[in-house]
Amino acid sequence: MNTSNKHLLIVAHGSRREASNNEVRQLCVKLDQLENSYDSISSGFLELAEPSIPDGLRQLITSGAQEITVMPYFLSAGRHVTEDIPSEVDIVRQEHPEVSIHLAPYLGSAEGVAPLIIKSLR
Amino acid sequence: MNTSNKHLLIVAHGSRREASNNEVRQLCVKLDQLENSYDSISSGFLELAEPSIPDGLRQLITSGAQEITVMPYFLSAGRHVTEDIPSEVDIVRQEHPEVSIHLAPYLGSAEGVAPLIIKSLR
Repeated sequence: MNTSNKHLLIVAHGSRREASNNEVRQLCVKLDQLENSYDSISSGFLELAEPSIPDGLRQLITSGAQEITVMPYFLSAGRHVTEDIPSEVDIVRQEHPEVSIHLAPYLGSAEGVAPLIIKSLR
Repeated sequence: MNTSNKHLLIVAHGSRREASNNEVRQLCVKLDQLENSYDSISSGFLELAEPSIPDGLRQLITSGAQEITVMPYFLSAGRHVTEDIPSEVDIVRQEHPEVSIHLAPYLGSAEGVAPLIIKSLR
């Protein structure tokens, strides 16, 4: 069993367009190169792509994860962020009360979003 | 008639949760405070909220806009970004060929997204 214990799961909506799902998977690879505070950085999807959020969490737990941060890769707090993602996370929290699963704020709530928009438009 | 001519329309998905739509509207206010290269910064929605993208563009044109940048406030290039938003923009381009409407890259394609995620998690 893998003894690593701090993992990041980036959770996106999921798309019928597989290139869009792969974009999220590639983002995880890029994040893994930039950040070494996690033993792994992987992705899960609310709809239309694999793994689902519960399956993504279960895979991490099966490989030994003891602490998992779930980050909603969403820009605004619609129902997916306020209701659906917390519910999916709760399913696995109930299955594995011994694992610490922390739900981080969704990306759109970060202070840096507005400056990033301006920079990207220049 | 307003003589200003360079405008930014931030285009989001739209939500049944009105607080989420207001978040996008508030982002525009914040952007307007940070950036003075546009005569106005406003929002339009693909679904579930007002104004629609064509209506948002038409309102700007009615008030004198000659150049409009449309920025998709989306993180990945699913069908909304690759098909739906360009189609909505094209409707108004055909109605107003005299107005320059530029479709900017979607936010998720910005180089700064991965560093922003890492920063927001710290």
